[in-house]
Amino acid sequence: MDEFDFIKSIQPSYHKQASLKKGIGDDAAIIKEGYQNIITTVDTMVENIHFSRKTTKPFDIGYRVLAANISDIAAMGGTPTFYLVSIVIPKSWSHDELKKIYQGMENLADVFHMDLLGGDTVSGDQLVVSVTVLGTVADHKERYRSHAMEGDFVFVTGTLGDAAAGLHLLLEDSTQHEGYEYFTKRHQQPMPRVQFINEAASITRIALNDVSDGIANELNEIAEASTVQINIDYERLPKHKAMNHFSSALQEEWLLSGGEDFELVGTVAEKDWEYLQEAANKTNTPLAKIGEVISSNNSPFRVQLYKNGKYQLLEKSGYTHLK
Amino acid sequence: MDEFDFIKSIQPSYHKQASLKKGIGDDAAIIKEGYQNIITTVDTMVENIHFSRKTTKPFDIGYRVLAANISDIAAMGGTPTFYLVSIVIPKSWSHDELKKIYQGMENLADVFHMDLLGGDTVSGDQLVVSVTVLGTVADHKERYRSHAMEGDFVFVTGTLGDAAAGLHLLLEDSTQHEGYEYFTKRHQQPMPRVQFINEAASITRIALNDVSDGIANELNEIAEASTVQINIDYERLPKHKAMNHFSSALQEEWLLSGGEDFELVGTVAEKDWEYLQEAANKTNTPLAKIGEVISSNNSPFRVQLYKNGKYQLLEKSGYTHLK
Repeated sequence: MDEFDFIKSIQPSYHKQASLKKGIGDDAAIIKEGYQNIITTVDTMVENIHFSRKTTKPFDIGYRVLAANISDIAAMGGTPTFYLVSIVIPKSWSHDELKKIYQGMENLADVFHMDLLGGDTVSGDQLVVSVTVLGTVADHKERYRSHAMEGDFVFVTGTLGDAAAGLHLLLEDSTQHEGYEYFTKRHQQPMPRVQFINEAASITRIALNDVSDGIANELNEIAEASTVQINIDYERLPKHKAMNHFSSALQEEWLLSGGEDFELVGTVAEKDWEYLQEAANKTNTPLAKIGEVISSNNSPFRVQLYKNGKYQLLEKSGYTHLK
Repeated sequence: MDEFDFIKSIQPSYHKQASLKKGIGDDAAIIKEGYQNIITTVDTMVENIHFSRKTTKPFDIGYRVLAANISDIAAMGGTPTFYLVSIVIPKSWSHDELKKIYQGMENLADVFHMDLLGGDTVSGDQLVVSVTVLGTVADHKERYRSHAMEGDFVFVTGTLGDAAAGLHLLLEDSTQHEGYEYFTKRHQQPMPRVQFINEAASITRIALNDVSDGIANELNEIAEASTVQINIDYERLPKHKAMNHFSSALQEEWLLSGGEDFELVGTVAEKDWEYLQEAANKTNTPLAKIGEVISSNNSPFRVQLYKNGKYQLLEKSGYTHLK
């Protein structure tokens, strides 16, 4: 079964509740409620699909699943406030291990003053941790992936591919590799960019995604949703200095398709670039301009990668081929 | 591992968000937001734990997991508005079967004009359907289980034990048994009592639970949360006429401990009893007075069952023993 087709097939064609501002189709849903808007999203991790005990400690399982959700809230421009946890527990997991999963979530939740609202605890054959997060966003400060416009600068926070490199080192057990501590920590305990995007609240319009599946995927989503063409420059993609200890092929794969370090990628009007830089400085967030939105009409809604003096089409998978 | 102890061990001891009115510990959580309060709850069903393909069609899997959530919203006095679905899909499930799960949810969601907000679709070894529901409730109309007071009438909607009888008939494949169609439908497609409790919105105070685990459990929760003693009369427990075709032992078990037909059980001041009856009449809801809250001080917070001329202690499990 094609998961993408399946998700399409279950999408409702119209809204029933007047308060629904943004349903399925962005990082999270937004509901208009009185003074502010409620954002909500759910993320699920399954043992041996999304993590294994070999590479992920119970504490980090909890931390990462909550981080993935918080990152979706950040990608809508919001502030996370509450979470609910549904957990399917096999007999092989001990009480102490389960407590550590919750402690991992609590540890990250504390950073954002989030409350645990409830949940469901059931038994089953395979560990499944499903987290629903609620957040808030002020009116007109929602950051949709459909907001990109011609002339925008394309930006990304932090460095790319770190979590993918970290997982690689954990699987290879390469504890002596340059940057081992840094990369594995980026895989195990990523920090969503909430403060940065909140600090940028004065900017009228930002198109935004979080990098959960790699920038190739995220930028294509923005190009399609905004019906624009995006050009990025491979040499501008920000990377950690220890990344150069890996092969060029691995670097390219991770920079374009590595996800789960939950950086933010988006576009902003040229006139607002300095304000975005200020928000980055105030929150100690690395910020790089990696390209531009070059046209909004009469062109395919696609992403082009400039590398070795040539433009290549960058597909969702991160796979590139010559024009 | 004791699930109850585990849940206790992960409960936060204080709130971080000022807008949180009711956290863990009732049917759902309530958040204060502008004009009204947001209610939210999550419920998870696992194949071969909460249902089997033998007794539950894919359509009914979706229907029931959403019904369980909506019932929790009703038990807080609210109106359901939105839902999110996280689903873990094993290879053995076909696209068509999965679509039917969503159709079952959609069918029930349509009754309440609820929108699907999003979700997560992942693969795994065992089917897990986890649904988060959001709803709203007006200020001061929240129905907590801690609201019972001395002198209150104890009430229940509908008839008790129907879903348990339905599951029994499905497992026995007793298609010729009296009431087969009725009982199995009550198991497969229970209808939460949203309209009834919304119609009763003019009543100032109602203590309320939904009957997910049987009234023995629900009434003990109310007695403990409200620090009261509750007396109920076995002869007054409402049952469907076909229930008499089962043995007295099965009837007692199902009436006291059968859940999942998602009726509402609660207490209301004597002066408001007629208004509750009016709400029942207007919404075509069977309503029965089954007992009274007899004292609020200097007594154990417990439930007593009057049967065969004697009072017995009614424990959470539905197990009774002489005083």
